[in-house]
Amino acid sequence: MKKLKGACLWRDPRPLDLHYGGQLPEVEISYETWGTLSSDRSNAVLICPAFSAHSHACSSERDPSPGWWEEMIGSGKAFDTDRFFVICASLLGGCYGTTGPRSVDPRSGRRYGPRFPVVTVRDIVDVHMRLVDYLGVEKLYAVAGGSLGGMESMELAVRYPESVERAFSISATARTRPYTATIRHIGRRAIIEDPAFEAGEYGDRQPVAGLRLARELGTIYYRSRREFNQRFSCHPIDEAAIRIEAINFDFESYLRHQGRKAPKIFDANTYLRLSMAMDLHDMARGFESLEEALCRTQARFFVAGSPDDLLIPIDEQIEIHETLCRIGKQSLWGEMSSLYGHDAFLKEFDWMTPKIRAFLDE
Amino acid sequence: MKKLKGACLWRDPRPLDLHYGGQLPEVEISYETWGTLSSDRSNAVLICPAFSAHSHACSSERDPSPGWWEEMIGSGKAFDTDRFFVICASLLGGCYGTTGPRSVDPRSGRRYGPRFPVVTVRDIVDVHMRLVDYLGVEKLYAVAGGSLGGMESMELAVRYPESVERAFSISATARTRPYTATIRHIGRRAIIEDPAFEAGEYGDRQPVAGLRLARELGTIYYRSRREFNQRFSCHPIDEAAIRIEAINFDFESYLRHQGRKAPKIFDANTYLRLSMAMDLHDMARGFESLEEALCRTQARFFVAGSPDDLLIPIDEQIEIHETLCRIGKQSLWGEMSSLYGHDAFLKEFDWMTPKIRAFLDE
Repeated sequence: MKKLKGACLWRDPRPLDLHYGGQLPEVEISYETWGTLSSDRSNAVLICPAFSAHSHACSSERDPSPGWWEEMIGSGKAFDTDRFFVICASLLGGCYGTTGPRSVDPRSGRRYGPRFPVVTVRDIVDVHMRLVDYLGVEKLYAVAGGSLGGMESMELAVRYPESVERAFSISATARTRPYTATIRHIGRRAIIEDPAFEAGEYGDRQPVAGLRLARELGTIYYRSRREFNQRFSCHPIDEAAIRIEAINFDFESYLRHQGRKAPKIFDANTYLRLSMAMDLHDMARGFESLEEALCRTQARFFVAGSPDDLLIPIDEQIEIHETLCRIGKQSLWGEMSSLYGHDAFLKEFDWMTPKIRAFLDE
Repeated sequence: MKKLKGACLWRDPRPLDLHYGGQLPEVEISYETWGTLSSDRSNAVLICPAFSAHSHACSSERDPSPGWWEEMIGSGKAFDTDRFFVICASLLGGCYGTTGPRSVDPRSGRRYGPRFPVVTVRDIVDVHMRLVDYLGVEKLYAVAGGSLGGMESMELAVRYPESVERAFSISATARTRPYTATIRHIGRRAIIEDPAFEAGEYGDRQPVAGLRLARELGTIYYRSRREFNQRFSCHPIDEAAIRIEAINFDFESYLRHQGRKAPKIFDANTYLRLSMAMDLHDMARGFESLEEALCRTQARFFVAGSPDDLLIPIDEQIEIHETLCRIGKQSLWGEMSSLYGHDAFLKEFDWMTPKIRAFLDE
């Protein structure tokens, strides 16, 4: 479990029933906030982390290191802390303080490890909404996130229709399609088949090779084909000394570098569970259709995406917007040309900032 | 080394200098032929295998099992054996009889194994042209292939301009781009990092897990996003019993099935070398430009591709055709709408047959 020094921990002693079965006897939630909750408690914005992120979306006095959405949160920024009370909590099933596979199961006194149950985006939403309630917020001014965070924003606006006024989703989908899931499947297999995984009982010795490979694969989907083709070359670094088992191209050394970060960012059992949560994501589950699910929301939506997104094609993002419009909900659509593809939400601050500010002003 | 029972073996005692350095003291070439060479030796067609293929492109009396291009070769088919003498030889660096990592190095009396040198598409071409010469063919009526086989067809038409009249290339590129190479890099790492790989000294105990994973990754690029999304579902096979370490979706069981074939199809050292040969493929290498390289050819080209190709985008196939046209060469272009994406050349026989027959009639 990685401690984030800026984070607060709240232990909720109530059991949590999970959507695919199983129960957690209690939940701990690790979170950070920025800005001040107004006296009428009407200015709270919930930021939802993506797959590899956590509560530290922005620097603070307690932790001055830059957060993963540093450019988006703060005075005068998209999520303006002079105006809003911004909340961000780590993910259920994650490894950043909120209950996950590295937490101790109070029933057994042992780490959950591979016994940690299957979690879904809906479970993640439920846990974050417990925190919102605990913080005294009845209605969120907005919820926002990219990728997994975008899935969470939308699910929250459907599951808690009375509790949110605006939802911003970027690089996300309303329901995961098989192709996207095959990519994650291969990442999971890389981890599971690493002998060091030990059926999830690896303790403190992570399956480094598997995590690295999974992360390298992720990287070629988080960014765009255009970016790789512009930035790198197929000329061997040293034509006269190609060694097939070694690094021969510049893109190989970039990918290796990204891969090496993985064991620091992820716990392997966390990787598997959050990866699976995205594969199982289907807003229409339990409804007749996506339309019926989205009919529940009372929030205004702002849906954005990039045509270079290789992980979740832009069509799936347009589908959300068009479905909302068809059923008479308020939705804005933003197509963002970005070399960063799926990762546009972590890069295109100049594009997002004025649009999000305008959306939050409406 | 996998023996193909229909194949003939020719041992060429001359050394072979390789394009990225190194020399093989001799070369063995495993090949098959169909039809009859005409008395003026003008009706020979060379078929070039793709990455996982070999000399057995078609059934024969010696080996009646169906070949990998069975539907394309034979009486009345695209490559009509009533008219043409069709040749197909296994790949240099491969594991189907032509000299490769599982061959014995006559200098040491030991298998080459990880000491087998880096090979390129140009080396593969050189070896196949030695065979063509040995078979008494001065000028090929045509050369044809898909994917790696398409790269070979084009290189052959440039390197041996006097020796070929027509070149058919499908699902190929004139020069590999970094993004495509990143995909293959990840497949190679899966093999190299499998502890069973043993730095290439695995002997007869292949690195099964690594080969399986590399092949699963290949599969999601050989086929199209459309196909996966139509054919499979993100509903778990058994909602009530999801086990994260096991198979939970239909596409997972399909991919596992494809992966399990890999150790039967590939030798791991072969996989690495042929994968690298594709990454190093650059027809412009040694020329000022692709134009300059293509200027050498005297062949008519027929270039085809599918808009759903995820491995080599159709733009790269169009580039070949357009470059040829720009420099005044004869080229036909064929865009093939196919659910099978990159693998269209192994599937779309109804589309290819009349077009190839017409091309060969010109």
